[in-house]
Amino acid sequence: MNAMIRTDRQKLQADFDALAALTEPGRPWTRRSFTPLFLKGREYLQRRFAEEGLDCRIDVAGNLIGRWEGNNPSLPVLMTGSHSDTVPSGGRFDGIAGILTGLAAISALRKAGIRPSHTIELVDFLAEEPSEWGLSCIGSRGMAAALEPHHFDLKGPNGEDLASAITRMGGKPEQIRQSRRTDIDRFVEIHIEQGPVLERSGMPIGVVTAIAGIARLRIRFEGEAGHAGTTPMDMRADAGLAAARLALALRDAARAVTGQGHFTATTGIMRFEPGGANVVPGAAELIVDIRAEQDAAMDTFLKTAEGLAGSAADAEGCRVASFERLSRTFAVACDEATRTLISTAASDMGLAAMPLASGAGHDAAFVAQIAPAAMIFVPSKGGRSHTPEEWTDLEAIALSADLLALTLLRLDTRKHT
Amino acid sequence: MNAMIRTDRQKLQADFDALAALTEPGRPWTRRSFTPLFLKGREYLQRRFAEEGLDCRIDVAGNLIGRWEGNNPSLPVLMTGSHSDTVPSGGRFDGIAGILTGLAAISALRKAGIRPSHTIELVDFLAEEPSEWGLSCIGSRGMAAALEPHHFDLKGPNGEDLASAITRMGGKPEQIRQSRRTDIDRFVEIHIEQGPVLERSGMPIGVVTAIAGIARLRIRFEGEAGHAGTTPMDMRADAGLAAARLALALRDAARAVTGQGHFTATTGIMRFEPGGANVVPGAAELIVDIRAEQDAAMDTFLKTAEGLAGSAADAEGCRVASFERLSRTFAVACDEATRTLISTAASDMGLAAMPLASGAGHDAAFVAQIAPAAMIFVPSKGGRSHTPEEWTDLEAIALSADLLALTLLRLDTRKHT
Repeated sequence: MNAMIRTDRQKLQADFDALAALTEPGRPWTRRSFTPLFLKGREYLQRRFAEEGLDCRIDVAGNLIGRWEGNNPSLPVLMTGSHSDTVPSGGRFDGIAGILTGLAAISALRKAGIRPSHTIELVDFLAEEPSEWGLSCIGSRGMAAALEPHHFDLKGPNGEDLASAITRMGGKPEQIRQSRRTDIDRFVEIHIEQGPVLERSGMPIGVVTAIAGIARLRIRFEGEAGHAGTTPMDMRADAGLAAARLALALRDAARAVTGQGHFTATTGIMRFEPGGANVVPGAAELIVDIRAEQDAAMDTFLKTAEGLAGSAADAEGCRVASFERLSRTFAVACDEATRTLISTAASDMGLAAMPLASGAGHDAAFVAQIAPAAMIFVPSKGGRSHTPEEWTDLEAIALSADLLALTLLRLDTRKHT
Repeated sequence: MNAMIRTDRQKLQADFDALAALTEPGRPWTRRSFTPLFLKGREYLQRRFAEEGLDCRIDVAGNLIGRWEGNNPSLPVLMTGSHSDTVPSGGRFDGIAGILTGLAAISALRKAGIRPSHTIELVDFLAEEPSEWGLSCIGSRGMAAALEPHHFDLKGPNGEDLASAITRMGGKPEQIRQSRRTDIDRFVEIHIEQGPVLERSGMPIGVVTAIAGIARLRIRFEGEAGHAGTTPMDMRADAGLAAARLALALRDAARAVTGQGHFTATTGIMRFEPGGANVVPGAAELIVDIRAEQDAAMDTFLKTAEGLAGSAADAEGCRVASFERLSRTFAVACDEATRTLISTAASDMGLAAMPLASGAGHDAAFVAQIAPAAMIFVPSKGGRSHTPEEWTDLEAIALSADLLALTLLRLDTRKHT
């Protein structure tokens, strides 16, 4: 068992405060990717990376990377990091926590006189949050050469295409497709949970089992619009009620998915047409978000959902005008060996840790395409995220940084098999 | 039994065609009150009223009135009519049918050589449909002196107040409050049903029992917004599901209202907040429209609705943040003697007629404040109204005009009790 490494709480606090100050003043906390404010954040990070002895570069995908050269240049890279951009009116922790804890861990390791055999890289991935270009995880997709040719043509503000925007961030988009990283040994990302599970369980640390697959459905019911006053109750085909019925049925069905890990189904958008106070809805649309830790559970549920839509329509004398799958991504399992190493390290530190799935997407899901990847979650107060109220206590974050330091140390000194 | 009077089908058709042609070209059929197009419609009507021997005037409330002086000036006025304005993208029949049938009936009576004892007035009520001033039934309210002082200050396009708009239509708004009509013997309005009951029952004529009272509710649920992916199904307070639950429960409760005449409850508007595909709704609002032929049924239902809202909130771990009664009008019973006279006349003509309530509001509801009022409905194809597809066959309308002629004749020659 290695001695526990304690990260510098004061510096960590100062870094969070400095980044929080770099926000659009009118809507804290907002630091959108590709903006001048985002670049100010990066300037700060680059200065701090350098202060802690890291060599900084921007890779072809526009990721900011701080590198601590290892003793043995033949060994692959140990990587950590997350993202510094935010959603509009986001929080002070989503993303940046994974960079600042990485920095704190590296700083603590250096201070402890450690010189790793593996090179350690700390990454600020470009544009993890959905940007004005309509794509998320741009930097981590780029690192895995998973950006599709059509992605580069996506248009953002002022008609700028994504390729130009990446160039403006210091990347070389024309080289991305040929620059798939193959030199990464392991990737570990710290992130706030963005959900209530750790807090309600009273656990300081979550070891992520998998990043859920996500499907989005758009379902449209059509019935018969009618005058709310003159259409008797027994002569209606109310599409709004079919939609209401389906939202409830999907929730019940999602609750009934058991023994297959994390599973959610959410109707976040519901719209009645024509949407008049005195008109029986002639059509209604729902957008449903479904997340599954296991792809098989998702497969089954998507079929179930189609059946439930049909039943809801039948019950209200309506029809399913369309049942569209807007998108579908598959679940990404976290690397089991790394998970075990993290859990053991936590236990050795006396830190209670629990396994849990990530319902949200993360850069780690794309890095997992090129290296064994794992994630550490810290509790989100009230489960809140993507809102100014997002909060995690500094000590909770610092403990995860301590754990990351020990994890990196053990990954560095482990026997390669 | 009087001889049946047959109205002129050709002229009736020509009048409908002429009025339909007076529409905004881009969105048939639209002739909004207070617009130049509306005044063109009135010009046509005034010319036609004059052709059929009526003396035309605009009353203080801006209603166009054609008057056929009776033989006995001591008798009160028999009145018929409806409105010539439309909703945006409305139909060719809503409103105008009640004016053109009145004109056809009067024309037929004159041609038959009849000279009534009572004066007969044919009215085009001003602005029956909700106008840009936010008020409906302006002319019929005005005739009953039921316009409130604050109504005159309502602002429409270009900031014009309602008083000025009524003046522009030829009215004298400053005299309305002192000009309550007290000289009306009976009022009969023909209108399209705007619902499916007559068509589905295979009945050509409806004799309206009452004009339903209307209540509007706005109900707001608040739960807890959360990330759709990271908030487990059993840790949610989904306000959208509470709203969905209530919409279904209100429908079930409305269906359970029996033996109390016409009753409807409709959720025409439902809105989730924040309304993101990946966010568990933290709040949701519904607008509910309730119509009742009997006020007691409405009273009971409003209490029931509040209880159902509470239950829906409880079931989803949410709370009823507000339960507002936006508006409430009371039911208006049609005059029983006039209904009986109409039913008998229809029967004598060999026309099948059925009693039914009006779920929609009408000018007759305000005229009922100053005179016994009744309504005759004709079938709406597919129950459709307030849409370009609104349709009633000419012969069906002509039959109602024949019935109106006989009704006016019998009202004129009846013994006053």
